[in-house]
Amino acid sequence: MTEIPIAKPILDLNDRLAAANRALLDSHGVFMLDLIASPGAGKTTTILATIAALRDTYSVAVIEGDIASDVDARKIKEQGIPAVQINTGGICHLEARMISQALDALDLDSLDLIIVENVGNLVCPTDFYLGEDCKIVILSVPEGHDKPLKYPGVFQVAQAIILSKIDTMPVFDFDERQFRSDIEHINPHALIFPISATKDHGVKTWVRWLSEQIEQKRRMKAKTAHETE
Amino acid sequence: MTEIPIAKPILDLNDRLAAANRALLDSHGVFMLDLIASPGAGKTTTILATIAALRDTYSVAVIEGDIASDVDARKIKEQGIPAVQINTGGICHLEARMISQALDALDLDSLDLIIVENVGNLVCPTDFYLGEDCKIVILSVPEGHDKPLKYPGVFQVAQAIILSKIDTMPVFDFDERQFRSDIEHINPHALIFPISATKDHGVKTWVRWLSEQIEQKRRMKAKTAHETE
Repeated sequence: MTEIPIAKPILDLNDRLAAANRALLDSHGVFMLDLIASPGAGKTTTILATIAALRDTYSVAVIEGDIASDVDARKIKEQGIPAVQINTGGICHLEARMISQALDALDLDSLDLIIVENVGNLVCPTDFYLGEDCKIVILSVPEGHDKPLKYPGVFQVAQAIILSKIDTMPVFDFDERQFRSDIEHINPHALIFPISATKDHGVKTWVRWLSEQIEQKRRMKAKTAHETE
Repeated sequence: MTEIPIAKPILDLNDRLAAANRALLDSHGVFMLDLIASPGAGKTTTILATIAALRDTYSVAVIEGDIASDVDARKIKEQGIPAVQINTGGICHLEARMISQALDALDLDSLDLIIVENVGNLVCPTDFYLGEDCKIVILSVPEGHDKPLKYPGVFQVAQAIILSKIDTMPVFDFDERQFRSDIEHINPHALIFPISATKDHGVKTWVRWLSEQIEQKRRMKAKTAHETE
């Protein structure tokens, strides 16, 4: 196992940088979520639906992580939303140092929510803390209900799981009961939000929960500001 | 970029072990393919359809790479096909040393074809040569036609690309012309096999090509044996 002695110092350094990111976000009362999924699970579509539902109430920015291309960042910018593109140049996950640079490029004073779209990968982003308030995993119905069993790590660290493309249930052999039972076993505290972003099903419930998290973060900042006055 | 000096020796060592795997396979005239795809793209379903089409003509074994679980290996074994399960314990790709151990567990003299099902990941398996004769990528229609642009590395190293779940084209906004044009740009020599394994569309064309590769490998072994007599 040649990887172990190498990975440890990288992760230690990553955690220190992530803690600095988190402190910076806390001081500005900005909620940040790290969105993890396989390629094509519907990350960008979910982000666009979330922005559409929240933009009248909150100020949102997106950090786009990609191996290559700026396809997704352009889609976000077309909506008039600030987007920072990170091209990892082949690296299979985002790291705290990349997020640190992206935060420098955003006006944190004016923001309430930052959505980080991680590289499409259900494995590697699991171990990298970026300074986010929570990790959210998207699993799409076409991927199959057995994925929590086969990729348990990412489902263990997720605070919530979005089950996307639920409008395609009739086309695929997806056993929702088995999926929920496996999640209950792997991560009993995880929330599950079934949605179809294109058909506008379930988005409201997801956005309501997210709004509560944003409000909580704002209150935390207000409290800290009051105490230090 | 802390990764670079670390990754290089690991890849060097991997390549040496992979070359040894390849020499072993060549000496037995066994063709090995490394099947790479995102979670849920249809790797196991494609393997099962391939086995069904080839099993009367060739002797096949499967090496199953998974983060956790033996769900897929059990499905293969149920078909009476030898399957070796590799659980990577969190590692996001297979490496040559793992394949080396798996080959030890197989009776190479009796085999014509080994299908390696890599860990579900469209990024990390790209850089790891296992000793295979070719890498095949599966992209499923629900993942979207823009994936070659966003994950070019794996599409560059693939000798052929299986476009799976084509029966779901009417449900998803998949632009096949754009997909083919992007592949033509990224990897002009790549073959493209559109299939629906569950509806038995396109499987014959894919299997015909694969059979030619197996025959070529057999002839190569026969020629070498003849020359060394």
